[in-house]
Amino acid sequence: MLIECVPNVSEGRRPEIIARMAELIRGVAGVRLLDHSSDPSHNRSVFTLVGDGAGVERAVLTLFERAIADIDLRTHTGEHPRLGAVDVVPFIPIEGATMADCVALAKTVGAEVASRFGVPVFLYEDASDNPARKNLEDIRRGEFEGLAAKMAQPAWAPDFGPTAPHPSAGASVIGARMPLIAFNINLATDRLDVAKKIAAAIRHSSGGFRFVKAAGFKLEDRGIVQVSMNLTNYEKTPIFRVFETVKREAERYGVSILESEIIGLVPSAALNAAAEFYLQIGGFKSDQVLENRLRTEK
Amino acid sequence: MLIECVPNVSEGRRPEIIARMAELIRGVAGVRLLDHSSDPSHNRSVFTLVGDGAGVERAVLTLFERAIADIDLRTHTGEHPRLGAVDVVPFIPIEGATMADCVALAKTVGAEVASRFGVPVFLYEDASDNPARKNLEDIRRGEFEGLAAKMAQPAWAPDFGPTAPHPSAGASVIGARMPLIAFNINLATDRLDVAKKIAAAIRHSSGGFRFVKAAGFKLEDRGIVQVSMNLTNYEKTPIFRVFETVKREAERYGVSILESEIIGLVPSAALNAAAEFYLQIGGFKSDQVLENRLRTEK
Repeated sequence: MLIECVPNVSEGRRPEIIARMAELIRGVAGVRLLDHSSDPSHNRSVFTLVGDGAGVERAVLTLFERAIADIDLRTHTGEHPRLGAVDVVPFIPIEGATMADCVALAKTVGAEVASRFGVPVFLYEDASDNPARKNLEDIRRGEFEGLAAKMAQPAWAPDFGPTAPHPSAGASVIGARMPLIAFNINLATDRLDVAKKIAAAIRHSSGGFRFVKAAGFKLEDRGIVQVSMNLTNYEKTPIFRVFETVKREAERYGVSILESEIIGLVPSAALNAAAEFYLQIGGFKSDQVLENRLRTEK
Repeated sequence: MLIECVPNVSEGRRPEIIARMAELIRGVAGVRLLDHSSDPSHNRSVFTLVGDGAGVERAVLTLFERAIADIDLRTHTGEHPRLGAVDVVPFIPIEGATMADCVALAKTVGAEVASRFGVPVFLYEDASDNPARKNLEDIRRGEFEGLAAKMAQPAWAPDFGPTAPHPSAGASVIGARMPLIAFNINLATDRLDVAKKIAAAIRHSSGGFRFVKAAGFKLEDRGIVQVSMNLTNYEKTPIFRVFETVKREAERYGVSILESEIIGLVPSAALNAAAEFYLQIGGFKSDQVLENRLRTEK
């Protein structure tokens, strides 16, 4: 069972602190650190790690211990909104793991963080049953500076831990979500209005697909426009359906697709689903993919 | 580096012999036995195993030792053509392995089999530089019964080992090839002539794609026809190109595609290539597939 975890930490300016965190994660048995990146203007670092449930739990607790020792939100500045030293911790099902496994892990880790470090924890996304606590943006609104006043309201009592922020480490948002796919489609036109209309047609917030966030941009240097998207649940809103809809909407304006691009990582299953759709493969099972067999067979 | 190996052994009737061979392969460090199947009428068993080069080499040599002790071609009968106790051993590049790695491994194992067991070895497919020795069917023509006479001709001197067959174990054909994909397309018609014409259009032997073998069949119980294919090099003749060509040829007769099917295993890269094509993904790198990163990153 493999679970991905992408902790966001409120430190992006002191390389030695960040390097030590990466080193600690690498040292945890049963975990691989796939990537980490830091943004000094955001003053924030993102770690991408993968492992079994127990390994990922150990890595996150180790990271909390270090971050609480090294980071003081009272003197922290940066462009990116944040509530805590370890700001956000999503658990993501990858292989042999279900969303239920990740929800359970988020709750276990949340309770442990609260009891061990005295940091209040808010559950979010699939780990929260409260509609007002699903969206990270809603929980984080007001940031660290507004947190004490926000938590004084009964509606903002945390899911675990004290009802007031940790003095230096604030609060943490821990939850479970599907892998996110960053998918862009470049159009063979310089008409920004076309990209914006297509983005509006496909995104959830304006009536489109449930798991699509989208915006239209101009790529000035290339003289073309782009529909830039985040696909937040590729099982329920698959890439191919989004692609075909964008293509059809673009036809309406006499515009064709130049190319698409996937930024960063994509789960194999998301690409396989597209192959199955276009090749009209019937009765396909994921264990027919040779590499999946390599990981499951004795 | 992962290499697949699919040894074909001339024993498909004695379950205890076959089970012992499977057990021996399972016991080799660095190797996984993914599958094995036996056909009593063919009197033949096929093992599918995967591992690093050294592991796969150990497994094949272990299998040879057992097969030479247990199988006597002089009393062997079966419908499937065969030359030897271990009849054919292809090495197939999977992950982080190249065709050159597999060719080198075929030559190492071939030399070892010849010197250790006195069994003559013919290299085939990519492991052979001799155009007359590329095709398994050409090497195997005449079978075990005709082997002594065939090997008496200078053109049929083996690549390794004695110039006469091993008395009971015959000779072995060892080589390197790409993974084979068994891909069928069902047409929404009962017209067998349409399936046969399309098969003729796409297969290499009658002017079609270099790495396609194809035939048209009737699926009597469903009242439809099928274009049944083996794709022998999915990198050079990709699935999507074959699919699109079949679809276009079928249109010529007013026939549409009902569905396709993949029989058995397919490498992830073959499906990803189809996703890239249809979604017009530009600049895609295989290490963007999350699962590929899991296998390569520290």
